[in-house]
Amino acid sequence: MQPKIDQLKRILNEVADLSAAASVLSWDQQTYMPEGGSEDRGDALATLSALAHKRFTSEETGRLLEDLAGQADQLNPDSDDARLIRVTRHNYDKDTRVPSEKVAEFARVTTVAQGVWARARAENNFALFLPHLQKIIELRRGYASLFAPFDHVYDPLLDDYEPGLKTADVQAIFNKLRPQQVALIQAIQAKPQVNDDFMRKYFDEEKQWHFGVEVITRFGYDWKRGRQDRSAHPFTISFGTGDVRITTRFDADRGSSALFSSMHECGHALYEQGVNPAYRRTPLTRGASMAIHESQSRLWENLVGRSLPFWKYFYPKFQQSFPEVLGNVDLMDFYRGINKVEPSLIRIQSDEATYNLHIMLRMELEIAMMEGSLEAKDLPEIWNARMHDYLGITPPNNKNGILQDVHWSAGMFGYFPTYALGNLVSVQFWECIRRDLPDLDSQIEHGDFSALLAWLRRNVHTHGSKFEPQELVQRVTGSKIDPQPYMRYLQSKYGDIYHL
Amino acid sequence: MQPKIDQLKRILNEVADLSAAASVLSWDQQTYMPEGGSEDRGDALATLSALAHKRFTSEETGRLLEDLAGQADQLNPDSDDARLIRVTRHNYDKDTRVPSEKVAEFARVTTVAQGVWARARAENNFALFLPHLQKIIELRRGYASLFAPFDHVYDPLLDDYEPGLKTADVQAIFNKLRPQQVALIQAIQAKPQVNDDFMRKYFDEEKQWHFGVEVITRFGYDWKRGRQDRSAHPFTISFGTGDVRITTRFDADRGSSALFSSMHECGHALYEQGVNPAYRRTPLTRGASMAIHESQSRLWENLVGRSLPFWKYFYPKFQQSFPEVLGNVDLMDFYRGINKVEPSLIRIQSDEATYNLHIMLRMELEIAMMEGSLEAKDLPEIWNARMHDYLGITPPNNKNGILQDVHWSAGMFGYFPTYALGNLVSVQFWECIRRDLPDLDSQIEHGDFSALLAWLRRNVHTHGSKFEPQELVQRVTGSKIDPQPYMRYLQSKYGDIYHL
Repeated sequence: MQPKIDQLKRILNEVADLSAAASVLSWDQQTYMPEGGSEDRGDALATLSALAHKRFTSEETGRLLEDLAGQADQLNPDSDDARLIRVTRHNYDKDTRVPSEKVAEFARVTTVAQGVWARARAENNFALFLPHLQKIIELRRGYASLFAPFDHVYDPLLDDYEPGLKTADVQAIFNKLRPQQVALIQAIQAKPQVNDDFMRKYFDEEKQWHFGVEVITRFGYDWKRGRQDRSAHPFTISFGTGDVRITTRFDADRGSSALFSSMHECGHALYEQGVNPAYRRTPLTRGASMAIHESQSRLWENLVGRSLPFWKYFYPKFQQSFPEVLGNVDLMDFYRGINKVEPSLIRIQSDEATYNLHIMLRMELEIAMMEGSLEAKDLPEIWNARMHDYLGITPPNNKNGILQDVHWSAGMFGYFPTYALGNLVSVQFWECIRRDLPDLDSQIEHGDFSALLAWLRRNVHTHGSKFEPQELVQRVTGSKIDPQPYMRYLQSKYGDIYHL
Repeated sequence: MQPKIDQLKRILNEVADLSAAASVLSWDQQTYMPEGGSEDRGDALATLSALAHKRFTSEETGRLLEDLAGQADQLNPDSDDARLIRVTRHNYDKDTRVPSEKVAEFARVTTVAQGVWARARAENNFALFLPHLQKIIELRRGYASLFAPFDHVYDPLLDDYEPGLKTADVQAIFNKLRPQQVALIQAIQAKPQVNDDFMRKYFDEEKQWHFGVEVITRFGYDWKRGRQDRSAHPFTISFGTGDVRITTRFDADRGSSALFSSMHECGHALYEQGVNPAYRRTPLTRGASMAIHESQSRLWENLVGRSLPFWKYFYPKFQQSFPEVLGNVDLMDFYRGINKVEPSLIRIQSDEATYNLHIMLRMELEIAMMEGSLEAKDLPEIWNARMHDYLGITPPNNKNGILQDVHWSAGMFGYFPTYALGNLVSVQFWECIRRDLPDLDSQIEHGDFSALLAWLRRNVHTHGSKFEPQELVQRVTGSKIDPQPYMRYLQSKYGDIYHL
């Protein structure tokens, strides 16, 4: 059996190398590549991705998986090798189900659509984007149909980002969450509002950069195995646990957003840096799913980075760095300001209380479009109506409404729910951490994140994608994905801030 | 016939994409990669190179080349397609002659040897490096033997860098050059020496960077198709004509070296940016050879960048940028200073009059080792003796003697001669340029390099590697590679500076 496992690993290593190479090219494209490089870069990325796909979906991989399936009972089902075979099998079955012409067509259509979407958004012109979106919906429905029979047509799409999770599970979770979040927001809106004017002032970029570096260094980001650069959209990218990079950006209108963005990306990066090194060059060396990834980024950005203990330690330094902005803002006013609840048109600018509602809305629309009960042409109207229902605001235009997000133009149906699930999971983990580390607040007040990171390393990071997301949550917390811890967290936090 | 040419191009495109990807990984490794990335990066690069080699040397490529060979008389022998087939055939024959175990062994041995060489140089310990060098020499002799019969055992090595050039040709050229260069140096040494103390003062790095950028922008370096970064050793790297990058470094002991280094690398980059875009993703899209490449870098660095017309334009600006260093140095003293002739222990610090002697010495030793008439253990002694014969100086240690250059540890036998040949070719081109652009000096005095660049683009750059280096020189200049133009240039330039 071992020779076959080794042979399978050699294939997976080669595929991982090609994928790491593609990631380096992609990182470069988003950070330093001059514009003249686009055409050749596109070709190089297409070649790498085609070669990786060809190698992974080869008959040799299939034969090895068949042979190993017969012998799997010789392995401890929780052993790394057994899990590697299982993950590989899952990916292989998905990847071989899709004809390569379909993969190529999808790549072509979404490449064009992303360019059109950018123009449509800039020009506030939904009609321009509509035919491309219709084509993408058609292709995604066709993709899903390759996996029939299924419980729900959305399942195969969701599975690409959350292996094993079902649409019905997510709907059940969101159905519990939605009314509670809406009620909380209404309760908050009935109270006197907090002031966050200082957040819209100018924070010197160089100082923000250095402050962000100081914070994430304290979090435990390993600079010998990573670096931070600037890019138009912040992201985290891994070329293996030894090189996990983040980017940030500076937004003149939203002063300190770079700091929160750095903490967010650092959360992703700590996860990737913390995967068991024994998994290198295999599919296990990445995070378990997008939701688990988001649980890590949101934990560091929000549960840590927008908490009072965190700012008890960092605020004096932060205030000193920006005396012209924060000289007259005391700690409690600052803390309330960075946690102001205010329904926003824009998802990525939303606070912790309203964010998930944007996601639930997107998912409802995605499901309706996949089911065929909603036509793309009707999206602006229904988007605006539900924004009013859930958040009490109505977008004045499509640019800041239905057109705001890139995901659909890239064909990423099934991705949005992972953002909200990540928020829920982050607090499920957090409740366990608080139980295991009773003096966590005091550690954070002293700028000490080592026990927190060690807990995450041990319980979450080290496993990479050895466990499916739901199994990982179950193993760590003893429960399924559950909205109640998140609601408890919101109610407690905003109860204090807004005197509910 | 066309379908087969198209099929061949598809293979070449894929190989070019893999090679471009490897170049991006290599650029990143030398500029921004954190140290933790080394292990995975090594694996990714090995996989890319193995896949490119496998694809290029496949039976399919061989069959297509066989089929096309039979039909070659249907093509104009100077057409791009005919030349592409010829270059591909040449590379294919070389690459398929070497068993892949040998390629892998050579990669392993030289990877280790480069680490050992770095330590040996730092510790001034030739004995540490000797066994590795012996192994590399053995492997290189074995490599050459795969190409028997040959006129000279060194021919196959030289051919890797200068396709088609023979050892005997280079020896004939160097035999004419050597006594003339030695005589010139002796004549110079008999004269009063020029002062270049200011060159060893501190030049602010930021200002040097900006001045260098201004200069190469004027040369015509296209920043939309390139960028400059810092690295330990300056280099130029191309990912296609749309993205050709350079690096520079700052050396505290040699004040303005970054400027000359930027001009040098810019010369390489202008060449790669200027290749006919129709050759993209094929082997024709690179420079014709290392010597032709070096002719371009040396032309911009020396024939332009160390010329009096150049500094007539730039010196007032340069002096203004560094008033504390150059405030009391007038143009003519500056010009003489940057052209001071002084036999140096270190090749890369050598002036135009002494540089080639370092190269000739290296080539003599390489040939003797390949022939088996010199043993590696005797290198330090013979190096030191010939340094005395050619340059009148004796290295005080091996660190600044035989151990100074990385090339042998990387197995790059046959590379050194291209540096000197590049110098010779640069002046052969220069004489033609002067004939075609009679007011070149005046253009340069006005900071106008456009006619010069256009000439190079038209006559040299656009062809990429369509022509073998000797054929290109013949087509452009009407002569073979010839040392006399270079000697005329040296005699005229230093005749003025040293009043010979």
